[in-house]
Amino acid sequence: MENSVDGNEIEAPNNITIGGTLRFLMANTNVEQSKKQVISLAIGDPARFGFNTDVSAQEAVLDSLLSGKFNGYFPTGGLPQARKAIADYLSFDLPYNLSPDDVYITSGCTQAIDMVISVLARPGSNVLLPRPGFHTYEICSSFRNIEARYYDLLPHNGWEVNLETVESVADLNTVAMVVINPGNPCGSVYNHRNLEEIAEMAGRLRIPVIADEVFGHLAFGATPFVPMGVFGSKARIFTLGSSKRWFVPGWRLGWLVMNDPSGEFQDPKLVERAKKYCDICGGPATFIQAAVPRLIQQTAEAGFLANTNKMLMRTSNLCYDKLKEIPSVGCGFKPEGSVAFMVKLNLSVLEDIGDDMEFCLKLAKEESLIILPGFAVGLKNWIKIAFAAEPVSIEEGLRRLKAFCLRHSKQQINPA
Amino acid sequence: MENSVDGNEIEAPNNITIGGTLRFLMANTNVEQSKKQVISLAIGDPARFGFNTDVSAQEAVLDSLLSGKFNGYFPTGGLPQARKAIADYLSFDLPYNLSPDDVYITSGCTQAIDMVISVLARPGSNVLLPRPGFHTYEICSSFRNIEARYYDLLPHNGWEVNLETVESVADLNTVAMVVINPGNPCGSVYNHRNLEEIAEMAGRLRIPVIADEVFGHLAFGATPFVPMGVFGSKARIFTLGSSKRWFVPGWRLGWLVMNDPSGEFQDPKLVERAKKYCDICGGPATFIQAAVPRLIQQTAEAGFLANTNKMLMRTSNLCYDKLKEIPSVGCGFKPEGSVAFMVKLNLSVLEDIGDDMEFCLKLAKEESLIILPGFAVGLKNWIKIAFAAEPVSIEEGLRRLKAFCLRHSKQQINPA
Repeated sequence: MENSVDGNEIEAPNNITIGGTLRFLMANTNVEQSKKQVISLAIGDPARFGFNTDVSAQEAVLDSLLSGKFNGYFPTGGLPQARKAIADYLSFDLPYNLSPDDVYITSGCTQAIDMVISVLARPGSNVLLPRPGFHTYEICSSFRNIEARYYDLLPHNGWEVNLETVESVADLNTVAMVVINPGNPCGSVYNHRNLEEIAEMAGRLRIPVIADEVFGHLAFGATPFVPMGVFGSKARIFTLGSSKRWFVPGWRLGWLVMNDPSGEFQDPKLVERAKKYCDICGGPATFIQAAVPRLIQQTAEAGFLANTNKMLMRTSNLCYDKLKEIPSVGCGFKPEGSVAFMVKLNLSVLEDIGDDMEFCLKLAKEESLIILPGFAVGLKNWIKIAFAAEPVSIEEGLRRLKAFCLRHSKQQINPA
Repeated sequence: MENSVDGNEIEAPNNITIGGTLRFLMANTNVEQSKKQVISLAIGDPARFGFNTDVSAQEAVLDSLLSGKFNGYFPTGGLPQARKAIADYLSFDLPYNLSPDDVYITSGCTQAIDMVISVLARPGSNVLLPRPGFHTYEICSSFRNIEARYYDLLPHNGWEVNLETVESVADLNTVAMVVINPGNPCGSVYNHRNLEEIAEMAGRLRIPVIADEVFGHLAFGATPFVPMGVFGSKARIFTLGSSKRWFVPGWRLGWLVMNDPSGEFQDPKLVERAKKYCDICGGPATFIQAAVPRLIQQTAEAGFLANTNKMLMRTSNLCYDKLKEIPSVGCGFKPEGSVAFMVKLNLSVLEDIGDDMEFCLKLAKEESLIILPGFAVGLKNWIKIAFAAEPVSIEEGLRRLKAFCLRHSKQQINPA
């Protein structure tokens, strides 16, 4: 959970978290010596970087609270009007209609992850995660005693799923494979054909797909966002999402959707377990749930997501263009979605940098610039750069990155 | 979770929930035939029965939302100001000071239950629950593959814990015992001596105590509320609580506190697991957490809890007095806390009632009165009556109960 960024976990070398890594880097900045304010291009929390939600979203919650009607408990699975609003919202992009009963309201997407894993897990089971990926899946699997196995994404092919590696790690105890689209941390957006191939393979292997679409609709490149649920007749699809797309991750509004258009995956035990999970773990405040119908309708009317995508396109392009000027980082893939992407380090041209962690640590010390080393998301000697930041921070941050790389390049030390 | 009252669980005879039982009873009312509106003395959600929170609590959340500063993630364990406010609030009744680090903010008390059980559980472990008790502990234990074992409460002795039954079911795999005070569903309040004895036994058996104090401070009788944490040096105490005391259960604001005044129970692994749970399951919205310091301070200034206790004393006395007029229900114990209590059925004087479920079912059918049968909380042939209701509903409800009992008493059928 990216909220751990400010948390108070103890960083342990064998138990690395994104939060612990970033706190370690932050503790190593030296504002006085570098005479530079700290800039972070590492955090995926847009709410901290001046990205505000639409005023209509706030008003919807405000009115709901003021009504005084939503201070009590909500029914198992969520407030009916919230479940219906999410069902209608997601059905818009599907060839079938979701029912409100297919939707479970959760406390953010993080809890939707725990819910789907808790519901699917049985003793001895395993779950297939993408590498690079989102660390919460690992933390959650380990906490629930589920084995995490990894399949690869293909960096030179738009971070597509390497289907062969999925097949090679799956077995009869595999209870799910996770597909994150738009990609976190890669900034990729899978096209219709990619997704269909994944669903067909999952169906063939009888492995349910956890479709993490927390950045759903944040697709600003050439590839339009297609929800995995479109292929709900080919495999069992669980779709996860959250209020992060409206820049209010702290409202803890998420959802888990069981897509099953043909009714062929019906499993009363699964539904019963999902309801039990909801009963024991709850979800967001009732008055926040009551605001969901207006939140969805009015932010749509205000063109909020369209404007957000324009802004992310601008900042991601800026990032991409500036990175191309730096010879020791490779930037083959231009991001098309989400709020961050991965960049490869060319360590062979750097003088005194052994790996991605050393790169980021020296960068923090010398330039007061915080960037996440790739090992924290499963990809050593890459770095993850968040472009959901103000253009001025991106420009200054990448200016510092360039200066740092030039200063540490072999040519600088031993000019030919 | 009492929110399941309106949920859509399927009632299964082998898997009885309070929600399922109440829905079944509700479906059996016949407003047309009885010519009576439905009255429920069954639900522990005060927010539904015209019990409103203090205006200052709502304003605190409103200002927090309007500030726009709390839309992002919160750190692991909760927003620091919320953790500190809860620590200070609870320390007021303790002989030592809690640190904000001892407090974990959860999504209601229900999630605090799941958190403490998830954190303490290991394969093969068991947890000791009071009988009668709160069904969420059973649901949660079963969901997390923990065995639930039961110890008895003593109805003729103020529902005190039967310490012998605790010792008889505890073993080396016991990871916790749950003590609910003020009592749910019994309306009891344990005195200092009771609590000390429990803590001493728990310490001797090396069993941590889960002190469910969701109704903490809702004590209006002769016995003042004493938090179990007072005995934190005698046993490992985990204190659970929530915003229910401010009549806003739907805000999903709860807490789990690790009391450890002497530092003797320090267990870094436990703390690490607690943080992981927080990372994967989250908590209430950041802006709700940000309002906690004002919520606590201003409701105290307004005398909110004192006024609530006055009201609960009035409605519980009304209940108690009216029940004494009904010969077929025994009402030995006068409630001193929480929002409900248990009343014994004297089935031997009733003509055609076999058990508590039949009693409540016929009551629903004939009188449109909903009361929870005791089997749903682990005590057959008792009933649970909620007194957190408007006096007019209590009077009319108990008038119907009396008429029902008289109509079904043996004397009515075979007058001597």
